[in-house]
Amino acid sequence: MENQKEKTTIILFSGDLDKAIAAFIIANGAAAFDHEVTIFTTFWGLNVLRRDQQVPVKKGLLEKAFGWMMPRGPGKLALSKMNMAGMGPKMIKHVMKKHNALSLPQLMEMAQEQGVKLVGCTMTMELLGIQKEELIDGVELAGVAAYLGDASNAKVNLFI
Amino acid sequence: MENQKEKTTIILFSGDLDKAIAAFIIANGAAAFDHEVTIFTTFWGLNVLRRDQQVPVKKGLLEKAFGWMMPRGPGKLALSKMNMAGMGPKMIKHVMKKHNALSLPQLMEMAQEQGVKLVGCTMTMELLGIQKEELIDGVELAGVAAYLGDASNAKVNLFI
Amino acid sequence: MENQKEKTTIILFSGDLDKAIAAFIIANGAAAFDHEVTIFTTFWGLNVLRRDQQVPVKKGLLEKAFGWMMPRGPGKLALSKMNMAGMGPKMIKHVMKKHNALSLPQLMEMAQEQGVKLVGCTMTMELLGIQKEELIDGVELAGVAAYLGDASNAKVNLFI
Repeated sequence: MENQKEKTTIILFSGDLDKAIAAFIIANGAAAFDHEVTIFTTFWGLNVLRRDQQVPVKKGLLEKAFGWMMPRGPGKLALSKMNMAGMGPKMIKHVMKKHNALSLPQLMEMAQEQGVKLVGCTMTMELLGIQKEELIDGVELAGVAAYLGDASNAKVNLFI
Repeated sequence: MENQKEKTTIILFSGDLDKAIAAFIIANGAAAFDHEVTIFTTFWGLNVLRRDQQVPVKKGLLEKAFGWMMPRGPGKLALSKMNMAGMGPKMIKHVMKKHNALSLPQLMEMAQEQGVKLVGCTMTMELLGIQKEELIDGVELAGVAAYLGDASNAKVNLFI
Repeated sequence: MENQKEKTTIILFSGDLDKAIAAFIIANGAAAFDHEVTIFTTFWGLNVLRRDQQVPVKKGLLEKAFGWMMPRGPGKLALSKMNMAGMGPKMIKHVMKKHNALSLPQLMEMAQEQGVKLVGCTMTMELLGIQKEELIDGVELAGVAAYLGDASNAKVNLFI
């Protein structure tokens, strides 16, 4: 068959606001070009997919500590540079709004509407004690083998 | 046609001295192998392409603040690790000179001489209020669509 | 010949524990899929391949300083986020052990057993004054040209 779609994969390892924005801008761009796009979130990147409210799930003490220390969802992320105790993210959000750029939650919604596959790394979830109910709707769970299956057939593979 | 050139693309998201050096070493290496190379600078990476002198352009207050807080050009960049209030970059520059390694400005000049395409991300420029006159000569401006067009035809695509 | 192996390359630029773990998990996964895998360690990433004991080699003062300031081997690495003066790495190692996940030294051993090629960047070694005897057994030394040779034939190329 000739009409296979081009593929793009992004490993989102970082939980920084700026890097998550970059990842979703690239993903949305690729989806607009009709690529099949996967964002595989691992380590800190998984935090981007967390719901912003606390979800009542049973956890051990260490898992609770991780859950408490790590940001819940796109609204709580820090910048990789110039974070300045939270002033940096506020400034970035402010200029994005001023210039009518989509916010990270909007970029994420658009990605899901365009069919971008959002994947949570099962190993990270186990290690950090994050459960499926704590993630936003529509997230698939998979491991590195599934990522490599996608990436081997993709032209553009990025680690962010 | 058989004789199409191989392509390499680098998204330079980081504005760290060490990562910028890595990006330009890879870019120069790929250009030496006769690849068509694009470095797409976005977010903090755009600072690498800024002129080191202030350029008189009209800006709002927030844009002025960003312009003032972010490093102007390769001479002002920090290290991603062991920056130690600027001592790290000095040490790195010192050992590079001692070992006759090209400095970042020299690597950038070489890249331009070899035809490496340096691109500034238009969205970043709008958000951070950076204008074309503030960037070094020879920089093209483009968005994520242009990047994806290049990357879809490239064998090596890196996010740095 | 049709039956050429698929190739995967990883530039490990970072010397952070979490990123090194990610690199070796991906490398081991790709090797399990019978890819030919190369991890090219450069800049801080080279520290991952250092032996944990001091090796008596002759060095200049600056090289000694670098050698002393940078972590020696996988046991000494910091986290890219939430390092908390070393408490973060301890917590991560603790949960990995608790969940029977392989530690970084074990992941590295497995990679070598599976034939993953570990490469130390010659230019980094020269700049930071690190000598071959200071690296673990089985590491090849090469430059950016060798990396590009591998990457041009690989489907998955990541910069970590």
